[in-house]
Amino acid sequence: MQRYFVEPEQMTQRSVMLTGEDARHCVTVMRAKPGDRFIASDGQGRDVVAAIITAARDAVQAEIVQEITDSAEMTWRITVAQSLPKADKLETVIQKCTEAGAFAFQPFLSRRTVVQLDERKEQRRMDRWRKIAKEAAEQSHRSKVPEIRAICNWQQLLAGFSAYNLVLLCHEDEGRADTGLRQTLADFRRSLATAPDTAAPNVLLIVGPEGGFAPEEAEAAAASGAKAVGLGKRILRTETAALYALACIAYESGELGGYSDA
Amino acid sequence: MQRYFVEPEQMTQRSVMLTGEDARHCVTVMRAKPGDRFIASDGQGRDVVAAIITAARDAVQAEIVQEITDSAEMTWRITVAQSLPKADKLETVIQKCTEAGAFAFQPFLSRRTVVQLDERKEQRRMDRWRKIAKEAAEQSHRSKVPEIRAICNWQQLLAGFSAYNLVLLCHEDEGRADTGLRQTLADFRRSLATAPDTAAPNVLLIVGPEGGFAPEEAEAAAASGAKAVGLGKRILRTETAALYALACIAYESGELGGYSDA
Repeated sequence: MQRYFVEPEQMTQRSVMLTGEDARHCVTVMRAKPGDRFIASDGQGRDVVAAIITAARDAVQAEIVQEITDSAEMTWRITVAQSLPKADKLETVIQKCTEAGAFAFQPFLSRRTVVQLDERKEQRRMDRWRKIAKEAAEQSHRSKVPEIRAICNWQQLLAGFSAYNLVLLCHEDEGRADTGLRQTLADFRRSLATAPDTAAPNVLLIVGPEGGFAPEEAEAAAASGAKAVGLGKRILRTETAALYALACIAYESGELGGYSDA
Repeated sequence: MQRYFVEPEQMTQRSVMLTGEDARHCVTVMRAKPGDRFIASDGQGRDVVAAIITAARDAVQAEIVQEITDSAEMTWRITVAQSLPKADKLETVIQKCTEAGAFAFQPFLSRRTVVQLDERKEQRRMDRWRKIAKEAAEQSHRSKVPEIRAICNWQQLLAGFSAYNLVLLCHEDEGRADTGLRQTLADFRRSLATAPDTAAPNVLLIVGPEGGFAPEEAEAAAASGAKAVGLGKRILRTETAALYALACIAYESGELGGYSDA
């Protein structure tokens, strides 16, 4: 069933209204008629099945026939902080990591970031990133569109560590990190068992630029509480690392089932 | 250090010769001079550090100064069987999964594969896929280039299951599979402990086309011994699924470290 994200004010107790591009898509692309159904999500956790009453290209009016209670959101909230990569690689990261369940994205600039910011283009790029996140969230049947935060610098990123229960720094260091990701995640999962107030723990996953982090940056991150972790013996491209790590986090957190004997 | 894959006959006990495109790359792009070093890999597990003696655009002669014994290959050999996806998506799958350590690729056609084979173009595409695998293997510091096997059909894929110790069928089935990937992998890992002859177990990871597998296909795979597994509550694009599953397999097999208490 087609899924649309709507603004909370487009959804009442009993009805949903599609407008703008969504109404046009529903009528023109999906060729929807009265009686056809779609899923609407208010992006804040409420998902409903709605049946169309009237369909016009500028507005589709529908009545809610079912509330969906089984959320596809991850239990752990993973914010992906990615050093701005070259070309359109951040688009790939946002699309793939949205499918994989990322909670938010925080692009940042670090010492070895080679991308030059162009103020005139920034708003346009941000709009494009948000559109990609929305479409990927719809496609993967999520009930939340990940937030794309404004680009920040390294100091601002460090200053925000305290908002997270766990900060992971993917630091290859010639392909060998001191601690494997698995031990760090397993320790964290166990720590949650004795901290019942963290039902939805916040995790910050930091991925560096093509050239990696400068040693001073890795040290500053560790001093601020980040855990440096390796992603195995092979060198992953910067745009591959976040999805790879997200899959591992999902695996450890129980998204892919548990162990029957655990 | 730059890494080049060479044919076994280009490497002797004490020397390495780069030829063709690799020699040109070494001299023209890397601007290598006598004394400079590179890593050469024979693609069969032997990796060496070599120091250049003479550098010309058609041949670079180097002496071996060190054997590298610490392999970046995965312990479990994962063959990625991917239903031929649209456009150039298989290129993405090959590039990313080579970085992540895939052992081989087996493209196949299934009921809902929408791609039409064009015999005239097949050899050119295969050449391109092999080039992408070679470059990604070099970039991620692997000592083996994954093999890209010729496209096969569903019956041929089924007939080959017996060559594997584990066959995983990624089957979303409306986003909910009967068994989570984690339990299946954990059971498999435990089974290896009592089967010491499988030091390098062979795993076949099967990812379906955009429209998923037909029910008869999933049934036939199960009847031939495949384990149907889900990759979580969100619907992943076909080109995202293999990398996501590979990361999970690497995680379970111990590539990202173990549990100190396990």
